[in-house]
Amino acid sequence: MQRALKISRSANFSAWYQEVVREADLAENSAVRGCMVIRPWGYGIWELIQQGLDRRFKETGHENCYFPLFIPLSFIAKEAEHVEGFAKEMAVVTHHRLKMIDGELVPDPDAKLTEPLIVRPTSETIIADSFRNWISSYRDLPILINQWANVVRWEMRTRLFLRTAEFLWQEGHTAHVDRDDAFAETMRMLEVYREFVETEMAMPVVAGEKTANERFPGADNTFSIEAMMQDGKALQAGTSHYLGTHFSEAQLIKFQAADGTEKFAHTTSWGVSTRLIGGLIMTHGDDDGLRLPPALAPKQIVIVPRLRGEPADAELIAYCNALQQQLRKQMACGAVLRVGVDTKDKNASAKRWDLVRKGVPLIVEIGGREASNGQVSFLRRDRLYNGEKASATAMAKDEFVAAVGGILDEMQNGMLNEAREKMTSRIHDGVKTLADLKAFFGASVADDEDAGGDNNPGWVRVSWCRPTGPELEKVEAELASLKITIRNAPLAQPPSHSACLFTGKPGVEEILVARSY
Amino acid sequence: MQRALKISRSANFSAWYQEVVREADLAENSAVRGCMVIRPWGYGIWELIQQGLDRRFKETGHENCYFPLFIPLSFIAKEAEHVEGFAKEMAVVTHHRLKMIDGELVPDPDAKLTEPLIVRPTSETIIADSFRNWISSYRDLPILINQWANVVRWEMRTRLFLRTAEFLWQEGHTAHVDRDDAFAETMRMLEVYREFVETEMAMPVVAGEKTANERFPGADNTFSIEAMMQDGKALQAGTSHYLGTHFSEAQLIKFQAADGTEKFAHTTSWGVSTRLIGGLIMTHGDDDGLRLPPALAPKQIVIVPRLRGEPADAELIAYCNALQQQLRKQMACGAVLRVGVDTKDKNASAKRWDLVRKGVPLIVEIGGREASNGQVSFLRRDRLYNGEKASATAMAKDEFVAAVGGILDEMQNGMLNEAREKMTSRIHDGVKTLADLKAFFGASVADDEDAGGDNNPGWVRVSWCRPTGPELEKVEAELASLKITIRNAPLAQPPSHSACLFTGKPGVEEILVARSY
Repeated sequence: MQRALKISRSANFSAWYQEVVREADLAENSAVRGCMVIRPWGYGIWELIQQGLDRRFKETGHENCYFPLFIPLSFIAKEAEHVEGFAKEMAVVTHHRLKMIDGELVPDPDAKLTEPLIVRPTSETIIADSFRNWISSYRDLPILINQWANVVRWEMRTRLFLRTAEFLWQEGHTAHVDRDDAFAETMRMLEVYREFVETEMAMPVVAGEKTANERFPGADNTFSIEAMMQDGKALQAGTSHYLGTHFSEAQLIKFQAADGTEKFAHTTSWGVSTRLIGGLIMTHGDDDGLRLPPALAPKQIVIVPRLRGEPADAELIAYCNALQQQLRKQMACGAVLRVGVDTKDKNASAKRWDLVRKGVPLIVEIGGREASNGQVSFLRRDRLYNGEKASATAMAKDEFVAAVGGILDEMQNGMLNEAREKMTSRIHDGVKTLADLKAFFGASVADDEDAGGDNNPGWVRVSWCRPTGPELEKVEAELASLKITIRNAPLAQPPSHSACLFTGKPGVEEILVARSY
Repeated sequence: MQRALKISRSANFSAWYQEVVREADLAENSAVRGCMVIRPWGYGIWELIQQGLDRRFKETGHENCYFPLFIPLSFIAKEAEHVEGFAKEMAVVTHHRLKMIDGELVPDPDAKLTEPLIVRPTSETIIADSFRNWISSYRDLPILINQWANVVRWEMRTRLFLRTAEFLWQEGHTAHVDRDDAFAETMRMLEVYREFVETEMAMPVVAGEKTANERFPGADNTFSIEAMMQDGKALQAGTSHYLGTHFSEAQLIKFQAADGTEKFAHTTSWGVSTRLIGGLIMTHGDDDGLRLPPALAPKQIVIVPRLRGEPADAELIAYCNALQQQLRKQMACGAVLRVGVDTKDKNASAKRWDLVRKGVPLIVEIGGREASNGQVSFLRRDRLYNGEKASATAMAKDEFVAAVGGILDEMQNGMLNEAREKMTSRIHDGVKTLADLKAFFGASVADDEDAGGDNNPGWVRVSWCRPTGPELEKVEAELASLKITIRNAPLAQPPSHSACLFTGKPGVEEILVARSY
C-alpha cells in the first residue's frame, strides 16, 4: 500500500523522523553547523506551545522578563568551582569587532574582550546576579519569573529539534523564603508541564524524580516528565529543579527574614524547549507524516477548492471563504477554530497529500458538486484510510459546521488515549533480575550512540534500594552497558516494594529504566 | 510642588529618562556591559507591543519563523564586499569550549572554530541563504515571513532601550516576483507601523523616506517613521526597506518566471525594536514618572485596598477581588481589561506613588468607607493633580464599572491628541535660509554626542532639491556641524515647493531636519 512518506517507522525510525521534519516543513539545517531554521509550520506549533504554557505560567503568578544573552566568563567559572562534571561545550565570544586585514575580514586583534563572554547555555548565574539586587527583605519574596529565550550548547551530533546547538526554550526562575515554599513551586511547575503536555500535546508522560547522578548541576532535586516515543525510547520532555541555597550561596542572594535574621533564599528553575516538537512528532506521527493534535495545529482545518482554471473557480472560492467564516466562529479545545483556505496554484490532490504530511487534523475538499449541493467532503487525519484508499466523508455544510468542534475535540482525546495505551502497554513489570533485564534489552543493543536500533522493547519498571555513591555508580555502569538509563522514580508509587533488582536489598521505590533520546 | 520623581524633564531630560526607567521598574543595566535586564513591567509592555504587531503581521499574510543566532563570517564578508561603510562592531564567537588550564577557566585553544561566527546584528544574509533554497518558481512567491529575535550590535555608549549591545526586535523579510510587488510590501509595512504606533502607543509619527546616505546598507529605498520626543529630538521608531535585487544577486535568489525566464527575486525587510519603549517613555512620561496609554499598560487598573492589619482586612480584600472580577468583563481599546489587586505588605500611599511612577492608567483605592458604601475612589494618571494635590474621584462602584471602558478609551485618545499637538506645534516652517537654520539650532549646540542639551527647539521642515553625491555630502556636513540630521522626506508633500534651502535651486521635496536619538 502506497503511503505519503518514502520511509516507514518500522523500516528506519530515525530516517522516518527526518523525513517527517522535512516533508512537513517543520525545520531544516542551516549554513551554521548545529543550528536549525524553524520553518513557519514548525514555528506555528511552537507559538501554540508558548501560548499554552505562558497562560499557565501567568495563572500561577509568574511574570516574564528578559536577561542578557551573554554571561561573563567569571560567572561560569564561579559555577564551575561548585559543580563537578560541569559541561564546558559553549560558544565563546572573544572579540567585538571585525577588521579588513590584507583583504580579508577577520576578528580585529585590537578589539579583544578583556573578559570573554559565554553565549548562555542556561541563565541561572546571570539571573542570580539580578536576584541578589532585587531581594533584601522577606517582603520581596517570592520572586516568580520566566524568560522565553534562545540558548546555545555546543553539540557535536545534532538532530533537528532533539539536539541542536541553538534551541528555543523557556526558563522559569524563582526565589523563596524557605525550602517548603520553593519545593512546592518545583512540584507545581512539574504538574503544569504534565497537565499541558497531556492536555494540549496529547502526549502522555510519567512525572517523577531523577536520580542523584542525573540531577541538574547544582540542584538538590530534579524532577522530569518522561514521554515514550513510538520506537519505545524515552524522551525527557521537561524538568523542574529545586536548587536549595546552592545559587544563593554562590551569588549571595540573602534577605532579612520576618524574625530579623539574615537568610539565603531558596531557588528553583524549570524549563521546556523546542525539543517538545520532536516529542510530538515521535508520539503522533505515522507513515503518512505528522499528525497534529487539534490543540497544537496552526491550522486545524484547511479548505481546498478543486480549482480548474475556469470562471466557475470564483464561485468555488467564494463558497470556501464563506465556509471559513462560519468555521471560524466555532470552538474546539477551548478556543476558536484556526481555519485556512488554500487557493495556491497547485493541483488539489498534491495539496491533499501536502496537508496530510503536515498533519492538518481536517482537510476539507470542495469541488463544483459540493458547492452547488451545499455540501463538504472532508478527510480526518486520524482515520485517513478505508482499506487502501483515503477515506473522505461527505456531509451537508451546516451539519459539518455544527459538528466540527465535537469532531476535533474527539480527535484530541482520541490521540491522547491512543498514545497512553501505547505507552502503558510497553511499560513492563515482569523483569525481576539483572539477567532478565539484560535479556530484555540485550537483543537490541546497536552500535549507534542513539542506541538500540529502531524497535526498542519499551520501558521496564523495577524496584530498587535507591543506592548512592559508588553503589549507584555501579548500577549506572551496568545499565550503560545495555545502553539504558534510569529515567525517573515516578511520583506515583505502590504501597510496598519488592527487592532491589540490582542489590537484592529491600526495595524502597520503583524506577523506570529505558533507552532514551 | 512635590513630584514623584527627583529629577524633572526640564532640569535634565536624560537624567529624568534614566530615573523613569529605574523607578518604573522597566529595565536595568546588567553585569554584561551594554546588555540590559528587562524587568517584568518593561517586558509586559514589550509583550503588548509584540501582540499588537504580530496580529497585524498575520492579518497582512505573514508567518513567523526562526533563523540561527549565528552567521558565518563568510556571509558577512560577502556583504562587506557589496557595502561601503559596512559596520563592523559585532560580537564574534571564536571558540566552542572552555577548559581549565592552570586552575583558570579559559577558551580551549583546541576548540577554535575553523570559521568564526558572528552573533546576528540583523538576519538578511542568513535568511537570503534559506530563500535561495525555498524559491525556484514564481509559484513560490511571495514569501512573507517575520522573526521575533534578539540581535547584537556592539555599542560603546549605551542607554537603556535606546541603544544597547543586545536588543529585542522583529525583522520581517519578504521576497517577491517584481519591484511593484516588493515596493507595495515595503509601503504596506511602513503603514502597519504607523497605524500601530499611533493607535496603540498613542505616539504620533511622520512617515517618510530616508535620504540616499541614510539608507540601510544594500537598500534601494529606506522609509522610516519618526516620532518627536518631549525634548524636541527625533526618534526613528521603525524602518521598512525595499532591497531591490541586492541580496538576491549576492546570494543567487533566482526563480523561473511565468514566462519561463530566470529572474532575481526582489526583497524587502522591515523592523522595530525594544527602542519603541524608549520612545513611549519620552513621548508620554511626566515629572511623576511613566504614563502608559491604556492599550499598552500591562495592568490598566490596579486596585489597592487600604489594609490595616486587622480582621476587617479580609472583607476589604473580598470587595476588591469582586470589583476586579467585574472590571475584567469590561472592554477598552478593543480588548478585555487587565486589572490587578495589590495586596502586598506595604502602605497604601507608598503603593499609590509606585503605581503612579509605573504609569498605571487608573489607580483605584478602597478603604473601609468605600467598601461599606459600595463606592470606589480612583486616580486618573493623565489628570493626577487638582492644584497641588493628587486628585481622587469618588464614584458608586457600579457606575464606575459601567464607565471605566469609556474612561480608558478617552485617555488613549487624549494621550495621542496631546502628543500630536506637542509634535505639530514644534515642527517649524519659517526657516528659509541656512543662516536661519544655524540661528534656530545654533543656540543649543552642546558638547554631548547625544547633542543639543535637553531643550531642543523641535524640528524644521525645509524645501530642498534632493541633491546627490558630493552635493548631498556637503549638505550633510553642514547639518552635522549643527548636530542635526535629515530625518526623512514625509510621504505627505505639498503640491509645490519653495527654493532649496541649501543650494537655492528649485525645491523638489520637503524634508524634516532635527536633532535625534
